[in-house]
Amino acid sequence: MKFSVSRDSLTTAINAASRALSNKTPMPILTGVKVEATYDGVVITTSNGDLSMQVTVEQDGLKVDQPGVQVIPGRYFIEIVRKMTADKITIESMDDNLINIRGGQSDFTLNGMENELYPDIVFSTLSNPIILQIEELRALVGQTNFATSLLENRPILTGVLFDVEGNQFRAVATDSYRLAQKQIELNISYDAKQIVVPRRTLEELSRILGVDTQIELFVADNKVIFKFNNVLFQSRLLEGRFPETNKLIPAEFPIEVSFNKNQLVAAIERASLLNIAGKDSIVKLKLYKSGTVKITSHTTEIGKVVEEVTPTATLSESEFTIAFSSKYVVEALRVFESNEITMYFTGVVKPFVIKGELDEGVLQLILPVRVE
Amino acid sequence: MKFSVSRDSLTTAINAASRALSNKTPMPILTGVKVEATYDGVVITTSNGDLSMQVTVEQDGLKVDQPGVQVIPGRYFIEIVRKMTADKITIESMDDNLINIRGGQSDFTLNGMENELYPDIVFSTLSNPIILQIEELRALVGQTNFATSLLENRPILTGVLFDVEGNQFRAVATDSYRLAQKQIELNISYDAKQIVVPRRTLEELSRILGVDTQIELFVADNKVIFKFNNVLFQSRLLEGRFPETNKLIPAEFPIEVSFNKNQLVAAIERASLLNIAGKDSIVKLKLYKSGTVKITSHTTEIGKVVEEVTPTATLSESEFTIAFSSKYVVEALRVFESNEITMYFTGVVKPFVIKGELDEGVLQLILPVRVE
Repeated sequence: MKFSVSRDSLTTAINAASRALSNKTPMPILTGVKVEATYDGVVITTSNGDLSMQVTVEQDGLKVDQPGVQVIPGRYFIEIVRKMTADKITIESMDDNLINIRGGQSDFTLNGMENELYPDIVFSTLSNPIILQIEELRALVGQTNFATSLLENRPILTGVLFDVEGNQFRAVATDSYRLAQKQIELNISYDAKQIVVPRRTLEELSRILGVDTQIELFVADNKVIFKFNNVLFQSRLLEGRFPETNKLIPAEFPIEVSFNKNQLVAAIERASLLNIAGKDSIVKLKLYKSGTVKITSHTTEIGKVVEEVTPTATLSESEFTIAFSSKYVVEALRVFESNEITMYFTGVVKPFVIKGELDEGVLQLILPVRVE
Repeated sequence: MKFSVSRDSLTTAINAASRALSNKTPMPILTGVKVEATYDGVVITTSNGDLSMQVTVEQDGLKVDQPGVQVIPGRYFIEIVRKMTADKITIESMDDNLINIRGGQSDFTLNGMENELYPDIVFSTLSNPIILQIEELRALVGQTNFATSLLENRPILTGVLFDVEGNQFRAVATDSYRLAQKQIELNISYDAKQIVVPRRTLEELSRILGVDTQIELFVADNKVIFKFNNVLFQSRLLEGRFPETNKLIPAEFPIEVSFNKNQLVAAIERASLLNIAGKDSIVKLKLYKSGTVKITSHTTEIGKVVEEVTPTATLSESEFTIAFSSKYVVEALRVFESNEITMYFTGVVKPFVIKGELDEGVLQLILPVRVE
């Protein structure tokens, strides 16, 4: 194998591919990057078992002198490419399974890994893809993924449900104490599909999404492939039944209170300051007949806080007090782009809902906490 | 105790004072901030045993209604002040040793700490101070402190020697494998003084130095006080004899090689990429008769690197090879402001010296490593 390539193209490709590279793995070969050169181009493959990526190096400045395959120790390969300053880099297989990487004043010779140990990874992009704009996918993930469960006792809750029906695409995450949902309308209709994508997959995916392109989703055999630019990004799916969440959302809300989002976040954060390190901070929200709202907390060992917030609008017939985890509410509020958000309450022990004036299709639901 | 103060003044004072606050301490009272209000002003004291600080709150916007003293739980006090948005903050002692902190829509009531447990910390600023410009102190510390020892087996080496004699101020640090020295000339002469200031003290001090003022150093009874702006910053000194370092520095250098600093750093860093994680990376520098320099490294398990660097000037009669820790040389090179630096060699097992064209009074010395 021998090819030359511009440093920028190689850096772009390898930075993307590094998201799926293993650091530690029961299969040591997966700490390597598989580089495959043909006269058609150069493809880089990485995998950590759960996630696999295939990145095609941009043709610009690429010249393949001799086709071939080589698995290169990943960590060193990435560091070398990132630190080289030459405009052009040449990669060449040598005798004794050595790989030479050179450019400018730099000349690296690395021990190669055993090519034949690298698993055969199939990226199946046969079925009809669902087409999303990058910004749509970014919103679907960003407004839900934080609410997945971190506990492994119900594995299905560690992922986000992607529920497609007709031209509706709904993403839902819940850890059973809160729920985050974002729904969008697609340009065309698709067959009904439900998949649950692991949290980690969506985190890594978010890190490498560009801004200006569309993305294709292929679903097959318990795997999903996201295809964009020169990248195939494949993940296993979570198996099992995602809970029926629609029935959790109350239908009627006798109490509605609207706030300036930033003011509310700041008040809740201050009300959470006096909690014991490592403990969940519970705050109370009290709506007075006068229309005033106070957010309070009290920790016997430390002290108490009273924060006053003036709602921008209130729809209520009586005084009302509810208590909740400040972390859950602040995380939910942060996903809204609207300046004004509205909290919808049904009762002191019933889940409440937050929506944003301008955030179409976004719903955040939180279970309150019972207090004395 | 009762006073009102502008949030900005209080934030500035408390951010500075937080550098000496204890998180964990055998004396729990030191996790508190001592606030002392008199009709003359408000003073904040913090200490972690080794370091103590006294910060005077700016008079601007300050109004003391009732003098008094109160020790306030530090972590909560700092967080509260940082998160409050009101322009003006009022702090008032209440019954039952409670402290009320309020401003705008926020109202905090904290359990106070036991004032009488707070140790009496004496800040003695009686002796004649040594006067330095902030930029001078920043250079004395920044160009030496990194070379102190992290090991506790020779405690004296975990600090920086400040050696004043006449109008010469010399700072020296060594971990016995390398030495960093910066010497400046003062405007006036002082009595001879030698103190050794702990690394941690100088790190914390560097974080709160402003840019535009001068600083006074008071030395007394195994303590040093740095006085600047509204701050008294006091540290214990290290006890023991700092090694006589002047005799370590060779007097003659038959070989001199000058480099562009950034090129040399980049080449050494690339030559260090193929080392085993956690191990010190040793590189070789070889000067050829042609004037070319190659920097190389070889790790059997991983591979080898050859970097070519073109010196900007060379003074040598023969070929020459030397090996060294890349970390030590890169850290030493980074303190220079000059674009061009010169390495001075005496022999393959003798310490070598680095100086910078424009860095007056800076000397970095490094012990080479013996290789086959």
